[in-house]
Amino acid sequence: MRFDNPVPVTTIAQLIGAEIVGNVNGNVTGINEIHKVSTGDLVFADHPKYYDKCINSAATFIIINKKMDCPQGKALLIVDDPFEAYLKIVKFYRPFTPSMKNISDTASVGEGTVIMPGAYIGNHVTIGKNCIIHPNVTILDYCIIGDDVFIQAGTVIGSDAFYYNKKTNRDIHYKKMDSCGRVLIENGVEIGANCSVDRGVSHDTIIGAGTKMDNLIHIGHDTVIGKNCLFAGQVGIAGATTIEDNVILWGQVGVSKTLTIGKDAIVYAQSGVKDSIAGGKVYFGSPVEDAREKMKEFVWIKRIPQLWEKVMANK
Amino acid sequence: MRFDNPVPVTTIAQLIGAEIVGNVNGNVTGINEIHKVSTGDLVFADHPKYYDKCINSAATFIIINKKMDCPQGKALLIVDDPFEAYLKIVKFYRPFTPSMKNISDTASVGEGTVIMPGAYIGNHVTIGKNCIIHPNVTILDYCIIGDDVFIQAGTVIGSDAFYYNKKTNRDIHYKKMDSCGRVLIENGVEIGANCSVDRGVSHDTIIGAGTKMDNLIHIGHDTVIGKNCLFAGQVGIAGATTIEDNVILWGQVGVSKTLTIGKDAIVYAQSGVKDSIAGGKVYFGSPVEDAREKMKEFVWIKRIPQLWEKVMANK
Amino acid sequence: MRFDNPVPVTTIAQLIGAEIVGNVNGNVTGINEIHKVSTGDLVFADHPKYYDKCINSAATFIIINKKMDCPQGKALLIVDDPFEAYLKIVKFYRPFTPSMKNISDTASVGEGTVIMPGAYIGNHVTIGKNCIIHPNVTILDYCIIGDDVFIQAGTVIGSDAFYYNKKTNRDIHYKKMDSCGRVLIENGVEIGANCSVDRGVSHDTIIGAGTKMDNLIHIGHDTVIGKNCLFAGQVGIAGATTIEDNVILWGQVGVSKTLTIGKDAIVYAQSGVKDSIAGGKVYFGSPVEDAREKMKEFVWIKRIPQLWEKVMANK
Repeated sequence: MRFDNPVPVTTIAQLIGAEIVGNVNGNVTGINEIHKVSTGDLVFADHPKYYDKCINSAATFIIINKKMDCPQGKALLIVDDPFEAYLKIVKFYRPFTPSMKNISDTASVGEGTVIMPGAYIGNHVTIGKNCIIHPNVTILDYCIIGDDVFIQAGTVIGSDAFYYNKKTNRDIHYKKMDSCGRVLIENGVEIGANCSVDRGVSHDTIIGAGTKMDNLIHIGHDTVIGKNCLFAGQVGIAGATTIEDNVILWGQVGVSKTLTIGKDAIVYAQSGVKDSIAGGKVYFGSPVEDAREKMKEFVWIKRIPQLWEKVMANK
Repeated sequence: MRFDNPVPVTTIAQLIGAEIVGNVNGNVTGINEIHKVSTGDLVFADHPKYYDKCINSAATFIIINKKMDCPQGKALLIVDDPFEAYLKIVKFYRPFTPSMKNISDTASVGEGTVIMPGAYIGNHVTIGKNCIIHPNVTILDYCIIGDDVFIQAGTVIGSDAFYYNKKTNRDIHYKKMDSCGRVLIENGVEIGANCSVDRGVSHDTIIGAGTKMDNLIHIGHDTVIGKNCLFAGQVGIAGATTIEDNVILWGQVGVSKTLTIGKDAIVYAQSGVKDSIAGGKVYFGSPVEDAREKMKEFVWIKRIPQLWEKVMANK
Repeated sequence: MRFDNPVPVTTIAQLIGAEIVGNVNGNVTGINEIHKVSTGDLVFADHPKYYDKCINSAATFIIINKKMDCPQGKALLIVDDPFEAYLKIVKFYRPFTPSMKNISDTASVGEGTVIMPGAYIGNHVTIGKNCIIHPNVTILDYCIIGDDVFIQAGTVIGSDAFYYNKKTNRDIHYKKMDSCGRVLIENGVEIGANCSVDRGVSHDTIIGAGTKMDNLIHIGHDTVIGKNCLFAGQVGIAGATTIEDNVILWGQVGVSKTLTIGKDAIVYAQSGVKDSIAGGKVYFGSPVEDAREKMKEFVWIKRIPQLWEKVMANK
């Protein structure tokens, strides 16, 4: 998430009650995921295993629950509960202020674009030229839609991430990590009916130019999909995953979080991708394997009774 | 389903043309599923294999197609077709009278709750405080939503049960069992985009406090979900199933009907649960097994070619 | 797709810039899929492997990219790019002219039918008698709904086919095959919440009388479903497939394209049907096999460790 204008680190520190260690003169430009940060970004680290990664990332500002040495030019913001500090910032800079109109006054819709009845277009949404937004589609705040994008009926763009912090020692069991990221849909994308594309938690969910999606597909938060991919019906992709260009996922394929599917990979129907897989290959199974190997395995399984017979005969 | 006021059993008998055997002075308080009944409830039994169970249940009133002995204080309502008698009662006491407004006059919405454009709130719906009901959500008649509940765009609460009686010797092949139950959503529940939660047939579908659900999830009729469960995208749960507290179901898991998943169970993505499983364990596969055993099985399958070679060498 | 009135073949030829070989006096009655064509229909063939099939089909008019001999009474329309010619015809005779009202003036709704708030009924839609169209349902142009049809909230009828032509040597990677077919839903069909039923590309998607579908189901373009079928939640069926009468598909079953499932077949939950299967049998697995055989296979797999032990002992 980018702030509308850079915010002095001292302002942020005051908002969250943090002590600043390091450079007190910087301006924070936005909040971001640790694997996507750049200069000016703010991240948070609430567990020792992330401390080094965060401090040594490209991020300039780190909300952290331990006083540590701070690299030159950066600033640590020391608080007891970095997660709660993050929520405070999001609630302050991206408060939930829903538009109560079908098309928000702050939304922008390009020439030649058709918005059909029952569609909801939220605050600060930008839709490009020559798009068709079918009936009962919901596009929530801050999402950006390119040109020549078709979104079929009932689809939801920009729903909140499914992302919770476990709070075992409190009244609340799971506490929602508020989403401040967006969904960016590039030119020429087509999305089927009754799909859902979650916004990023603090980064963006991106669907690359020319990608085509069938119906009832779920795309998780912060997932980045390349150009000219083809996803068949009921595919589900979890959060913060990377799908490179030209990937084809057939029906009901499930893809786990924070992994990468390489360029030109093809995954057959009902497969489950639980770890990263290389591009240029064909996969099948749950969990997936090389499709040809998997097919051979089916043949081997059919031979077990024959094997049993032989072993009994050998006895 | 509870009647608005208790109904004399003689009134019910007259409505459905039943002969009463037993206590003619009782008042019927509601209709319920056989595994959920209590005193004052009405059930129906149309097959000999259910006769004893129904008559000896906690229910006070039994619609039945055979004259039998009636326990003290209870009443049997004898009819030719108990299923049709049930439909008559439901159609009379819960007639389909849809509200034609976006928010019904008989709905009640708590302080601080936001209902966004395109949402539909039916008759006698109660929504608690500080909820967010996103655009194009549908909440149908008699559903009860607690406090601090977030329902994301496009989700449907209170759709009718998928429950049909097979009528092989009639014009009609499958006849719908009308739903008169509700959906009860407890405090702090969060439901993703484009989900569907069916109402109970005669009991209620319940989602326990603090449970969080991702997008495109299907919850069947009369299913009871515990507190603080976590269901990832595209999970599907059939009817009349019990999911105890803290259960985690990962993406695309399918759960069959009328079974129980024990407390703290975790089921890995794409698994299929066809029978009850004990709590506190981790499961995988379709049908599910202990996840570690299932993983070992994958290793054993990979060894078949090696086994084949050994057997051939032994010959 | 039927034209509103038959169109002289010379008019079509002029529209697409085609040279006519054969009978120049015919009238084109419609466009259709090659496996569904009848006299008066137009098809297109853009690859040598389809030339003979198209020319010798029941179709009277063939758009083709090679000059060939034409059977008596038929006409070939010779163009460089039959796919682009097809798009021109569809865009001309079925231009996208969305109704901007919730219920189009050209829609027709039968007596006793209830259309609830937020539902969208497009141009030239016909809905029969005593139907219930729940809130936020979308029924798009030209779809035909019979009598006594219930469509639950959020469902989309008539979304465009997921059908693209790969254009490797152009700017555009996948080019959409515009849909001009319809969805026909016969009497007594019931469809659950948040489903999607795609229209045919040029033929129709058909759901046979008395068929009942649960929630979150996806039905692909040009698929023909028989009478009295039962599909449980999250079933997905790809395009141009045939499901015969009385077929039961349990939850999360996936069915591939252009295949046939025979009458009375039952497919267990989470199975994957990738080729045609005979009627009257029970199936399980991904890909499916005879359910009993599949169950036996599970038992055989469990015996591998035992087999291993025996082989080691035999050594």
